[in-house]
Amino acid sequence: MIVVGGTASNGMDISLSKLIGADLVKVETSKFPDGEIKVRVPEFDAKNAVIVQSTHFPQEKNMFELLLIAQELVRRGVNITAVVPYLAYARQNRSFYPGEAVSVNVVLDMFKVAGITSLITVNPHKSGPLMHFVGKVGIANAIDTIAETVKKSIENPIVMAPDKGGLVIAKNAAKVVGCEYTYVEKERDLYGAVSIKKTHGGDFRDKNVIIFDDIISTGGTIEQAARYAFDEGASTVSTAAVHLVMAGSAYEKLKNAGVTRIFGSNTVPFEHAEIIDIAPDIAKTLTGLGI
Amino acid sequence: MIVVGGTASNGMDISLSKLIGADLVKVETSKFPDGEIKVRVPEFDAKNAVIVQSTHFPQEKNMFELLLIAQELVRRGVNITAVVPYLAYARQNRSFYPGEAVSVNVVLDMFKVAGITSLITVNPHKSGPLMHFVGKVGIANAIDTIAETVKKSIENPIVMAPDKGGLVIAKNAAKVVGCEYTYVEKERDLYGAVSIKKTHGGDFRDKNVIIFDDIISTGGTIEQAARYAFDEGASTVSTAAVHLVMAGSAYEKLKNAGVTRIFGSNTVPFEHAEIIDIAPDIAKTLTGLGI
Repeated sequence: MIVVGGTASNGMDISLSKLIGADLVKVETSKFPDGEIKVRVPEFDAKNAVIVQSTHFPQEKNMFELLLIAQELVRRGVNITAVVPYLAYARQNRSFYPGEAVSVNVVLDMFKVAGITSLITVNPHKSGPLMHFVGKVGIANAIDTIAETVKKSIENPIVMAPDKGGLVIAKNAAKVVGCEYTYVEKERDLYGAVSIKKTHGGDFRDKNVIIFDDIISTGGTIEQAARYAFDEGASTVSTAAVHLVMAGSAYEKLKNAGVTRIFGSNTVPFEHAEIIDIAPDIAKTLTGLGI
Repeated sequence: MIVVGGTASNGMDISLSKLIGADLVKVETSKFPDGEIKVRVPEFDAKNAVIVQSTHFPQEKNMFELLLIAQELVRRGVNITAVVPYLAYARQNRSFYPGEAVSVNVVLDMFKVAGITSLITVNPHKSGPLMHFVGKVGIANAIDTIAETVKKSIENPIVMAPDKGGLVIAKNAAKVVGCEYTYVEKERDLYGAVSIKKTHGGDFRDKNVIIFDDIISTGGTIEQAARYAFDEGASTVSTAAVHLVMAGSAYEKLKNAGVTRIFGSNTVPFEHAEIIDIAPDIAKTLTGLGI
């Protein structure tokens, strides 16, 4: 077994190779003046490879690099497991309006045709869409690993899910942190703006609130949840999520809302957060799949 | 038959639909804050579609949009011809060093798996690599169409190929323009810099030189060829190419070398050139394939 690290592996290739005791090969890439990329995979002696390549922004470029790596390994007769820590387009899993393409299916079909036989990703927003992939699928859960760091970092905590959909994550995180959990309900006005309607249990007074979620995208929901927590008497508000996509002005929104600490993982690069390496969760998932 | 125009069709979807007498449907796209795109194809009543979508910069994004459109049409049971006027990665058709991925094969495999059964492109740098595509392949030749405009625009002309590989294009262009043609030989020094070694026939003195090529990428070769033409007594130097990729400072290079007019086609968008719509060549190729 060998680990092949793409340019969007965010260090997870290094830690994973150490954890599973496999050699690491780093992919060499270059860019032509017109923007096209070139990929070279150094020679290695193994019949099974785990490629680590996330597909955060620029999503299509990172996906294409993964496909190029896979093609070269297939040419060598190597069996491929792809670890895609952040899976782009995973939320575009149905036609919300007639005529819309189901993007995640295209991504999964491309992976398959490139010769990827097993796919591992981390806390997808929904897992159902992954079943479109024709091959083994492993889903790593990084919540516990992140919650362990939060437990060591935050005293007198309470875990909050920023919406009802995040309740399971909050419950699991709270179990590790060893504290209460609750969730707030959000509503959107006619213009799409998010506001918090009510809390379901929990007392924020003089507590250090940790808003837990799978992904922070635009930051709008976390921003409102943080403001609500302060209104309800929170001492401090931190946030923790697996995928710190942090699109546009997400970081500024969180800072302006008074969020002091941001915890996340290395599925997506983000420099203003406390990043936890979740390679151990990938290693566990590989073992679970018998890889 | 219907024409489906993607966001990178550069107007060729409109002219093609008129030429072949087919209705046009414009794809609706939007972009999420994290950079992911969404594609919607309005409803239409046809069983055969010609998608027009070029794959110039940003190459992977434009390719992915094409795949999303194709997937949605396949879902509707529509038979798909893809017109990809500029085919990205067409020059990466072999491993120049061991371990390099053959990028164009990945692109063509993706097209196939997305359900594209026929593929049409325009003057690829080499046509051999296209044979990897499992389906009908049509290659449109836009040289004559561009040369016709050059003929009307430049008096006392001579056509020059900037290297020996461009000789066939120069010969064909010269036939349409109705003038002499020649080629220069370039050599690269140890640092990769291009210089012109010698000309094979032709007299540039007091002539209006038109440097013809399939593609202008970094502009380095055209720049040196233009300087050489002036050294040899050319009155003016213009350039004409099918694909004006014009990467980086290509335009500045050409202007600094004294190139006055740039002719190109709408396979790639470029604002500082005289752009010729080559939809007629696409229409001819469609007919040739029996589509």
